[in-house]
Amino acid sequence: MTLTIGVDVGGTKVAAGVVDMAGEVQASIRRDTPADDVAKTRDVIVEVVKELAAEHEVDAVGIGAAGWIDAARSTVLFAPNIAWRNEPIRDYVSNAVGLPVIVENDANVAAWAEFRYGAGREADDSMVLFTIGTGVGGGIVLGGELLRGAHGIAAELGHMLSVPDGHLCGCGRLGCIEQYASGNALVRFARAGARQEPDRAKILLELAGGYVDAVTGPMVTAAARSGDPVSGDAFAQIGRWLGIGLADMAQILDPQLLVVGGGVVEAGELLLGPTRRSYLDALSARATIPVAEIRPAELGNTAGLVGAADLARRR
Amino acid sequence: MTLTIGVDVGGTKVAAGVVDMAGEVQASIRRDTPADDVAKTRDVIVEVVKELAAEHEVDAVGIGAAGWIDAARSTVLFAPNIAWRNEPIRDYVSNAVGLPVIVENDANVAAWAEFRYGAGREADDSMVLFTIGTGVGGGIVLGGELLRGAHGIAAELGHMLSVPDGHLCGCGRLGCIEQYASGNALVRFARAGARQEPDRAKILLELAGGYVDAVTGPMVTAAARSGDPVSGDAFAQIGRWLGIGLADMAQILDPQLLVVGGGVVEAGELLLGPTRRSYLDALSARATIPVAEIRPAELGNTAGLVGAADLARRR
Amino acid sequence: MTLTIGVDVGGTKVAAGVVDMAGEVQASIRRDTPADDVAKTRDVIVEVVKELAAEHEVDAVGIGAAGWIDAARSTVLFAPNIAWRNEPIRDYVSNAVGLPVIVENDANVAAWAEFRYGAGREADDSMVLFTIGTGVGGGIVLGGELLRGAHGIAAELGHMLSVPDGHLCGCGRLGCIEQYASGNALVRFARAGARQEPDRAKILLELAGGYVDAVTGPMVTAAARSGDPVSGDAFAQIGRWLGIGLADMAQILDPQLLVVGGGVVEAGELLLGPTRRSYLDALSARATIPVAEIRPAELGNTAGLVGAADLARRR
Amino acid sequence: MTLTIGVDVGGTKVAAGVVDMAGEVQASIRRDTPADDVAKTRDVIVEVVKELAAEHEVDAVGIGAAGWIDAARSTVLFAPNIAWRNEPIRDYVSNAVGLPVIVENDANVAAWAEFRYGAGREADDSMVLFTIGTGVGGGIVLGGELLRGAHGIAAELGHMLSVPDGHLCGCGRLGCIEQYASGNALVRFARAGARQEPDRAKILLELAGGYVDAVTGPMVTAAARSGDPVSGDAFAQIGRWLGIGLADMAQILDPQLLVVGGGVVEAGELLLGPTRRSYLDALSARATIPVAEIRPAELGNTAGLVGAADLARRR
Repeated sequence: MTLTIGVDVGGTKVAAGVVDMAGEVQASIRRDTPADDVAKTRDVIVEVVKELAAEHEVDAVGIGAAGWIDAARSTVLFAPNIAWRNEPIRDYVSNAVGLPVIVENDANVAAWAEFRYGAGREADDSMVLFTIGTGVGGGIVLGGELLRGAHGIAAELGHMLSVPDGHLCGCGRLGCIEQYASGNALVRFARAGARQEPDRAKILLELAGGYVDAVTGPMVTAAARSGDPVSGDAFAQIGRWLGIGLADMAQILDPQLLVVGGGVVEAGELLLGPTRRSYLDALSARATIPVAEIRPAELGNTAGLVGAADLARRR
Repeated sequence: MTLTIGVDVGGTKVAAGVVDMAGEVQASIRRDTPADDVAKTRDVIVEVVKELAAEHEVDAVGIGAAGWIDAARSTVLFAPNIAWRNEPIRDYVSNAVGLPVIVENDANVAAWAEFRYGAGREADDSMVLFTIGTGVGGGIVLGGELLRGAHGIAAELGHMLSVPDGHLCGCGRLGCIEQYASGNALVRFARAGARQEPDRAKILLELAGGYVDAVTGPMVTAAARSGDPVSGDAFAQIGRWLGIGLADMAQILDPQLLVVGGGVVEAGELLLGPTRRSYLDALSARATIPVAEIRPAELGNTAGLVGAADLARRR
Repeated sequence: MTLTIGVDVGGTKVAAGVVDMAGEVQASIRRDTPADDVAKTRDVIVEVVKELAAEHEVDAVGIGAAGWIDAARSTVLFAPNIAWRNEPIRDYVSNAVGLPVIVENDANVAAWAEFRYGAGREADDSMVLFTIGTGVGGGIVLGGELLRGAHGIAAELGHMLSVPDGHLCGCGRLGCIEQYASGNALVRFARAGARQEPDRAKILLELAGGYVDAVTGPMVTAAARSGDPVSGDAFAQIGRWLGIGLADMAQILDPQLLVVGGGVVEAGELLLGPTRRSYLDALSARATIPVAEIRPAELGNTAGLVGAADLARRR
Repeated sequence: MTLTIGVDVGGTKVAAGVVDMAGEVQASIRRDTPADDVAKTRDVIVEVVKELAAEHEVDAVGIGAAGWIDAARSTVLFAPNIAWRNEPIRDYVSNAVGLPVIVENDANVAAWAEFRYGAGREADDSMVLFTIGTGVGGGIVLGGELLRGAHGIAAELGHMLSVPDGHLCGCGRLGCIEQYASGNALVRFARAGARQEPDRAKILLELAGGYVDAVTGPMVTAAARSGDPVSGDAFAQIGRWLGIGLADMAQILDPQLLVVGGGVVEAGELLLGPTRRSYLDALSARATIPVAEIRPAELGNTAGLVGAADLARRR
């Protein structure tokens, strides 16, 4: 039975695992890494791969990392959370560990994992994943294959336009969906609501020790679950924009399935309820035509390494 | 040499042609049709196919029509300009002419024609076409194949959202790109400008006999070419929104090429200049990453029948 | 007791009345007029004034008309619904009837009437009126006086901007509040909703004989009262934008009172409920500061002649 | 000749002056103050007033301060930059110095000073001032008097809505004009532009030592003056929104004059050019009707104390 290693490289940690053909993680390791030390991050990757490869017979290594990856899946062109710029990570790791290596964008590997083993495992052709974490990412599967794009940068879904002249995005443009449907947007909307109407945010403010600026995403989720109106509104706001984005994807790609993943989807229907309403509203003119349904991702934070490992197997 | 017939069914005419493997039209026929007479339109299609098939040895027939086509490419579910509702046009024509038939959306066949023989003939993998006619349509080629979608309705690009709460679209939603980047939008913007500032629309108003309501798309193009400021502004407005839509496509699909077709593109740089500026502006944050360039379609109004014929050959 | 005559000149009728110092209408006349016959409209005005003046001892005449009036309150510069252009209506009527005459904008006279005798009679200083008819008009009272503006065109509230790049307005600009909070907008939103989701518009469609295009404003009101969801949504949409406009007025002018009049306000809480929610939402950051409340106008369609008569008394 | 004292209370300094009936400053003092020390700020105000009153025979004191002032002009309800909450500053200072005192909002006093002695000195009736500093403030003069509003909070022009669902404002709402036309917005737009297109921001980046985050408002002005394209664009962006806001003011209030003040207006035509174009564009439908022109403020940073002193004289 073929085993491969998947490595999920985040801003402050590296998670790696040995994954089998059924998508099961046979063994895994997790290490903290310094985000600003390029060499150190590379070394930790090599280290964990060697450790896992010493105990399991593996065929290849897949690495998932936030950022733009070149079309050859060998070099990280730019990573927002790691100090990598044109980092030839594939060859470095491959030489160090003596195994074939591929590198892929983190949202892409998550999409692939969900398509193969998660929310999309019954789909055989097409699926779009939005990941709602601190930012918004995306992955697209079409014709049973991950869409990489002609220049390796397909599925940059976080930078679709939501609001012309809207909130300034980190990318420099005004109004990207990342500013309206991300975990950061959730916190921003919740803090604004708590400042405006503290009486409607009592539960949230209690969790934050009374300090609006101390509000975090998990607090908004917890407060919304307990019925905090301002926190519920914050989910409704991001769900509204996410639903519009999903409707655009249905109209552009018409996939079998739409999946919402990332940390924020742990809020479940708090997020998915308003998302579905907004989605159907945006599509209602075409109500007679069947469209993809929206499902939550199922693999949680192992999606990254599972997807990376599976793509390495299919390299 | 294999020949096939392509049929382009419009609101008021049917154009058909015999197309060879090089995409050349060997013979063609054009007939007027009544938009509201379903039976008559079907009969004209059968008639022109029979006429062409009598004189050429053809293998198959491809029909391109505005509207939603089912995933089996046999039935027109809904056509905005023809009185077809769940019209089983494939079997009807196939039975009548004794040849295999496929039916496909008009923008899809145009995209396919451009990919094979027109602006995208050097692309081997991926291309997105926006058609700017009275409305906005689209076609997507990925992995060398036309993207049809899980329910047959992919590439409904005219209904991507441009402006939340914007101009009411015929589909019932507010703010679709069709209301901002179409030929109808061009005329609406030009008329509004001429009403507001008649002095800056002298050339346009002269063409329209002094009546703002008599302004048409070709008049706006002619006036803009002659330096009419209001007409030039109208092109800048639709180019602005088209460029944003193209930037979204680059970020979502990262194709090799972006093509703009449809009658309005005959205006050339009047449309494409502002479109490219808006496109690059929307992408400028990612300026270091290579992206698809924007080219005008090359096949004009034969794209429909050429693409339909070619898809019939590849059925 | 001083009596004056007020004349309310609409697109298709002239209503005139003798009004006393308590704002009571002692006698009134109503005549149909042809909108496109300038001379005829003038003559009807003279006729009804003479008739009323023959039976009552009156001091002056006030005329309210839709359109821009010059700062001297003597000339109608432009009237959207009547064929008046630079019409010196004051002197014409004054010469014909032998009484002093003033001319004033129709929304201004309505605002004045509400301030003196209607919803604002307890206010002694300031009030803003939005009239929601087929369009959106406005009148402003500050320091106990009607605000006329330096050029006679203050309170053109219908052309405040609601949505940048939004729906095209009759004035040529995109996104004026008149396109979002008027009776016409109500009908447009309701028709769009009925087309999108006919099942949620059963009551409305029954009133319209099954034809979406036959839907009128009174039908939307009647259907919303009977619980038609699409009709209720249409009121929520215009209320949302009206509330935002009222919040802007509170922030700019900080009046004692905000009043909503015009034919659409007959829908009562169907309109005012969502309007108030949107208003408070837009103001909630400043929740600790007292602001004006929103009340419906009280004088209905006699406001025009009552206000015109009262302004004539105070000329 | 009657003299009064004007005091301009900022976040980190107090400026006071003796002003004569011609609006000339006869003597002035400037002191630094700790923003978070309420008592200390009060004491500095008393101190400088006493000092000036010892050397000049003055009748009254006017204090201008950022924040909401109650309708009686006695208490600062809330000050964004000073730690004042319901601060009864009028009575405190009056008791301490033995003179009548009035308190007024800082943008209001600036508007009054410009109306009386600055850009609006030839206007006899009405003027609107937008102050473009780090935020956006405003003052309105109508009928020759400062508009204070029924609750003392008129002319909160910074919180007019520019972009529905736009950039989050400090007030908690999305899309206020303060987020689009302020000095902070200028810096935000310039930084975003410099990140997106560093090649077009060479002059600006050189001024900022190469660090985008080090860019300040004065650097953007200096760079724009030297032809830096990104800096020029940033002025065009804030001018666009400011022009729309001014057009709304012309339509609502129809004043004799519109004035733009605040630190950013020192950029002159860099700001006023795009502002005027946007203003005329927004008004062009009504091009036949005369409207107010836009002028820069003339009094610079003495406007605050001059206006406060003059209002104290007229108390």
